[in-house]
Amino acid sequence: MKNAKSNFSEWYTEITKDAKLCDLRYNVKGFVVFMPWSVASMKKMYAIYERELERTGHKPAWFPALIPESNFHKESRHVEGFTPEVFWVEKAGDNVLEERLAMRPTSETAMYQMYSLWIQGKSDLPLKIYHQSQVWRYETKATRPFIRSREFYWIESHDAFSSLAEAEAQVHEDMEMSTNVIFEQFGVPFVFFERPQWDKFPGAVNTYAADCMMPDGRVLQLPSTHLLGQNFAKPFDVKFLNEKGESEYCYQTCYGPAISRIYAAIISVHGDDSGLVLPYELAPVQAIVVPIPKKGAEETVNAKAREIVALLSSSGIRAEADFSSNTPGFKYNHWEMQGVPFRVEIGAREAESGELTVVRRDNKAKSKVKQGELAAFVQKEAKAQISDMKKKALAEFEARMSKAETMEKLADELKKGKLVAVPFCSMGKEGAACADEVKAKTSGDVRGTRFGKEERAHGNCIVCGKKACAVAYVASQY
Amino acid sequence: MKNAKSNFSEWYTEITKDAKLCDLRYNVKGFVVFMPWSVASMKKMYAIYERELERTGHKPAWFPALIPESNFHKESRHVEGFTPEVFWVEKAGDNVLEERLAMRPTSETAMYQMYSLWIQGKSDLPLKIYHQSQVWRYETKATRPFIRSREFYWIESHDAFSSLAEAEAQVHEDMEMSTNVIFEQFGVPFVFFERPQWDKFPGAVNTYAADCMMPDGRVLQLPSTHLLGQNFAKPFDVKFLNEKGESEYCYQTCYGPAISRIYAAIISVHGDDSGLVLPYELAPVQAIVVPIPKKGAEETVNAKAREIVALLSSSGIRAEADFSSNTPGFKYNHWEMQGVPFRVEIGAREAESGELTVVRRDNKAKSKVKQGELAAFVQKEAKAQISDMKKKALAEFEARMSKAETMEKLADELKKGKLVAVPFCSMGKEGAACADEVKAKTSGDVRGTRFGKEERAHGNCIVCGKKACAVAYVASQY
Repeated sequence: MKNAKSNFSEWYTEITKDAKLCDLRYNVKGFVVFMPWSVASMKKMYAIYERELERTGHKPAWFPALIPESNFHKESRHVEGFTPEVFWVEKAGDNVLEERLAMRPTSETAMYQMYSLWIQGKSDLPLKIYHQSQVWRYETKATRPFIRSREFYWIESHDAFSSLAEAEAQVHEDMEMSTNVIFEQFGVPFVFFERPQWDKFPGAVNTYAADCMMPDGRVLQLPSTHLLGQNFAKPFDVKFLNEKGESEYCYQTCYGPAISRIYAAIISVHGDDSGLVLPYELAPVQAIVVPIPKKGAEETVNAKAREIVALLSSSGIRAEADFSSNTPGFKYNHWEMQGVPFRVEIGAREAESGELTVVRRDNKAKSKVKQGELAAFVQKEAKAQISDMKKKALAEFEARMSKAETMEKLADELKKGKLVAVPFCSMGKEGAACADEVKAKTSGDVRGTRFGKEERAHGNCIVCGKKACAVAYVASQY
Repeated sequence: MKNAKSNFSEWYTEITKDAKLCDLRYNVKGFVVFMPWSVASMKKMYAIYERELERTGHKPAWFPALIPESNFHKESRHVEGFTPEVFWVEKAGDNVLEERLAMRPTSETAMYQMYSLWIQGKSDLPLKIYHQSQVWRYETKATRPFIRSREFYWIESHDAFSSLAEAEAQVHEDMEMSTNVIFEQFGVPFVFFERPQWDKFPGAVNTYAADCMMPDGRVLQLPSTHLLGQNFAKPFDVKFLNEKGESEYCYQTCYGPAISRIYAAIISVHGDDSGLVLPYELAPVQAIVVPIPKKGAEETVNAKAREIVALLSSSGIRAEADFSSNTPGFKYNHWEMQGVPFRVEIGAREAESGELTVVRRDNKAKSKVKQGELAAFVQKEAKAQISDMKKKALAEFEARMSKAETMEKLADELKKGKLVAVPFCSMGKEGAACADEVKAKTSGDVRGTRFGKEERAHGNCIVCGKKACAVAYVASQY
């Protein structure tokens, strides 16, 4: 690669192009074509998320991509928040439709009218449904492949309960799931913030969102989970009969991991100057076998390469050999750029001795491994690899945490790419003016308060000087 | 169920509603909500199809849902065939778009402009890509859930080659894949027809389509594969440099199994008067454990039921127990309707003796099985079950085959729900008038000639009396 990762923006542009992750030349603005190397990984991410959702009692359903405009108008904040971003269908063939239809920007207004029909009594609760889908939003912010585009791939789960306590527990479960998947399995560290009241999901009571840190010191929002309370249940008439025979509105939550955006975080956090470093479980190819031809021994070397691919495959390792006419050095660079976790080098000596050279992608450590032990070695090292990747990413993330008690210090820390804790007057609507001033003076955004961590505020609001009642976190954002 | 399967139309309406396969009450005409019981099976169908596509060298990609109108106009027959069915997006937020965008009715015109960028030399070929997606078509025919709706779920593969021979071989591979999946694994028999020239996919050289037989004697088209030749390569400029350094147009094929429609065929072909009969591999629950409570022994029976579920699950069998307050008889009927392949009955006697009653859904055969042998029994019987289901379905399909040499006989056979071989003048455009007359007089459709079966025509065209040059098949169609 030409660009070092310290030059993150160029690095990102280059890697998404050169590793063939996507193609920006599609002729609709803000839309990209996702290419096989990224899609193969994102399909595995979907499978992992679906397994977690099913383990926690969710069932799959498919809701229509088109939603009548009137559905949006049922929840006033929701319509306000989303209609400016909606792609509208008004015609089909030569016919003008009676009512215009929105391409779903999110599915609350498609799903909850059905929930109202499906839920009668307590035995229908909890109702926990997930939907793997694409959504479309006419973003006016600059688009960036995987990070923000007008079409993105996500999975949304929408749950309904008979009590607020259960809904609150669901929000916790969603956050735990995010940790289990995104940190534990994909190795991307983040923190959950309770978003300020002025920055909630349109229609929610509270929004909890995971922020990870990109290498340029800007935070990227990963999944958010929303406590909807009865805000949607009322307009959509989602009710159940309680034990006393009385009709009661359900309590709802929704959760939406954007697979394409989480992929952006994975490649950004783990990548290095040589290119991608993919988590073993997500890599389309987990071990690449590179034959090093020697005059006269070509067939011996190639035969051994095929044998090793078969051997690794039979242990369930996704292995391929590169028999192209490129030089070994070119192949090393190429497969390092693609982020393949293990490289197995086979020269004439290795073919004869059966002792192979194995190189780990993340730390480039070399080992000599006997053929009979190769599969077990790869599987064991794969565990060490993701563990090391997590440790490294976590250390980098923690080094980004900082604090400030003055606007000057805050501005300095933000310039250094930090996520900065500051004393703040209020996370309610009253605090919005101070957040605006932070934005105007430092271009930092108030992300909210740390969820699940009691942090007592000391001193005065960094902006207005009133007594602080919250520790707010500020960062530059994507 | 109220309706017997002999009353197919009512049976189908009832089963899709009562087994909670879909909900027709969504408020956009022609769109349905696919509910968990069907989606869980369709997700497995996708996984099976994707495995086959990857096995045959296809890679996954995701193309945008929106296609600029001008892309459609590049291939004149394609634009003619599809634009009357397109949902158009002309506005986003409050902005009128510069060019209106089609919600993809199929992806040729989105994909091939990218193929033109991706393919340079022979080393880029063959290019074999699949895309799991939904498509939208403003159908004017009556919609029927799973069978025909304005949004459907499919998987499309689009392949490019350097020679016509390879493209033709791909069409064969697609047909073999259809047999491997739809007949061998899902148990639905069909035949492949080469469609008449007047009934091709818009823009194709030839269309080969699988027709299966629904219980009311009407054929339903399952996957079709299309030899596109260079018809799209030319307008979309999909070229490669051949060995002589000359620029040549690629030869293309496309294949599109509609998962939701194949699901319709599966439930229709295998279902019976008691409801669904799901193929073992596709069933969301493969074994349902029904405890039969006896006063005083409730806890023994329930504990045994839980133990049996754990035992089956540990062997990879999707098992659940029904602990609801319904009667055993109600539960038997319910799970039979849902098509669960095996039922395990546990009463007080079974709980004590450890010898359980197992009932197969397809033939309702009962067996006594010792607890220690249960998992192996289910796995073995599962193989026998799909094999028996295939045999039964194939016998029914073959009994539908018939022939006729006069229009009177043809009309009679069609009334009996047959797929009728007739002598026919021409499958080229010249034959279209005779096909129209068949339609007008018998409401039968000419489906084409049997693919891969040399059938020599004798006598004269059943319509115009000219010398027959093809054995055409006629059927009523969905």
